[in-house]
Amino acid sequence: MTGIGNALLDIIARDTTDAYRTLGLVKASMTLIDEDQLDTFYQAMGPTIEMSGGSVANSIAGIAALGGTCGYIGKVADDEFGERFAHDLRTMGVELDLATAAADEGATGRCHVFITPDAQRTMATYLGASNQLRVDDISERLIERSEITYVEGYLYDLAPAKSAIRKVVNFAHQHDSMVALSLSDMFCVQRHRRDFLDLVTSDVDVLLANESEILALFELPRLELAFRALDELGLLAVVTRGPLGADVLTSSGVVSVPASEVDEVVDQNGAGDLFASGFLYGLALGADPVEAAELGSLCAGEIIRHLGARPESDLESLAIGVGLL
Amino acid sequence: MTGIGNALLDIIARDTTDAYRTLGLVKASMTLIDEDQLDTFYQAMGPTIEMSGGSVANSIAGIAALGGTCGYIGKVADDEFGERFAHDLRTMGVELDLATAAADEGATGRCHVFITPDAQRTMATYLGASNQLRVDDISERLIERSEITYVEGYLYDLAPAKSAIRKVVNFAHQHDSMVALSLSDMFCVQRHRRDFLDLVTSDVDVLLANESEILALFELPRLELAFRALDELGLLAVVTRGPLGADVLTSSGVVSVPASEVDEVVDQNGAGDLFASGFLYGLALGADPVEAAELGSLCAGEIIRHLGARPESDLESLAIGVGLL
Repeated sequence: MTGIGNALLDIIARDTTDAYRTLGLVKASMTLIDEDQLDTFYQAMGPTIEMSGGSVANSIAGIAALGGTCGYIGKVADDEFGERFAHDLRTMGVELDLATAAADEGATGRCHVFITPDAQRTMATYLGASNQLRVDDISERLIERSEITYVEGYLYDLAPAKSAIRKVVNFAHQHDSMVALSLSDMFCVQRHRRDFLDLVTSDVDVLLANESEILALFELPRLELAFRALDELGLLAVVTRGPLGADVLTSSGVVSVPASEVDEVVDQNGAGDLFASGFLYGLALGADPVEAAELGSLCAGEIIRHLGARPESDLESLAIGVGLL
Repeated sequence: MTGIGNALLDIIARDTTDAYRTLGLVKASMTLIDEDQLDTFYQAMGPTIEMSGGSVANSIAGIAALGGTCGYIGKVADDEFGERFAHDLRTMGVELDLATAAADEGATGRCHVFITPDAQRTMATYLGASNQLRVDDISERLIERSEITYVEGYLYDLAPAKSAIRKVVNFAHQHDSMVALSLSDMFCVQRHRRDFLDLVTSDVDVLLANESEILALFELPRLELAFRALDELGLLAVVTRGPLGADVLTSSGVVSVPASEVDEVVDQNGAGDLFASGFLYGLALGADPVEAAELGSLCAGEIIRHLGARPESDLESLAIGVGLL
């Protein structure tokens, strides 16, 4: 299993004064910011915690924590944040194909994460070096060994992404690797709706989204209509619905899988990413989609119990303990 | 209330393979490392989380979270870690007197924290710029406004510390600020036993220690003997004992205060520091030592529920909720 996405460091702070709103951010969504806005955003945050992030990178870290063999393709700068991003995946056993940006191509990307008391996360992302991921940075080395190649919708915010994603998808088709796509964010879907629809129609085997993302993609008002559209495309699809669990589109209709029971939700950051870990790893192991979604639920339940989007627990033991591995 | 100590960034990782032992560290203690060992230690760690640390800085952050007015004196380098250390205290409302080291005096100090599955923390500290704290960096600006001046025992590991601490203590005496001392670490006590005894005998009003530190100071085998020695010195003293709570030496003998009940201890990092927050803030507000220790227990109970030594909760609301503020 190989993931390709934005290599980012997360800068996480609790936000009890709705600072995110003063900064013009939309709750529970991701807004892109420029280098000259970095200081304004950082200074508006309370005390921070830093840790590696990036949506698909979080999913790959989750698969590694489940005991899976996996790789990651992305781009960082030759700086301390880049070194830490690489260290944190490498030390989990993830094989890396990390390109390094030139000195004038910006710093390693970072995501400012505002956690409000309702456990929602609102993000402001400086893409930096990750934005420089080019077609030349993509090799087939990792993809050719993968049952699934997992692509982040956020990649479409990168300037040269279309050709890089094209190359990834071609390699995947060539080596019989399934193509999985995360729709990433409702506003991201709105920015790149045409591209996403093209990709979903012709190249994607597995689609992961939440409710607002899938409705934005099809410009439909209700989930059941979106599932009808997905069914016509013949896709394996899963739609995560927070505390309502996840709906899986199977050959015999839509099946709902409940969310993990969690005493206290601390931070929803990474819930979708870790759901993807369990779901995709389950599929790669040959589980049926409903069983895979159950493993996804378990992983999402772990990540929302604590700050940050990287697992703190040994997910493999957790899954074995409840009979899901 | 003003604290003076080592300004450090914590680099925290879970250690499930006893990597700390392979590196020659002693469990639950702090070992000093050099700049040329930084890479070895970092590479031996799993995925890390970074956040501001430093023992007395953690205590000051806790007092700020309790709603107290406080200041901090220390030294960082002109680098990203230094900027973050300052940001994290400033944004909590702490007034800073942070000296900046010259370019050739090392990077901002950092502490590698290994969290084992038993929730113990084992530390390897590179002092870096904090080690350059000199007598000239100490002003009376913050001390003259403080009921209590809190000094970190770890400061004695800094080369020019004796004269800097002397200056701090003189300012405190001059302005009727009580002098509180944390013994910091058993090995630190062994390294500087004579200096600590001199300070405790002549200058300290409030002494904070854990069991192994206080026994090392007096070279005594049992806590009751140490309390007898403390009583003869006429000190207000508190000895923290982990899950056994804290023993407070009052004018009418030793009183035990239970530890907070915590469902799952995640990380003991910062337990002593946050106990100090509550204890010293309670004293500053005029509480008796036993009430102050109860506030200390509450704060320690918060910090061990999550990774890291900086509070994640609004300690003031927590304390008000249980009638301790």
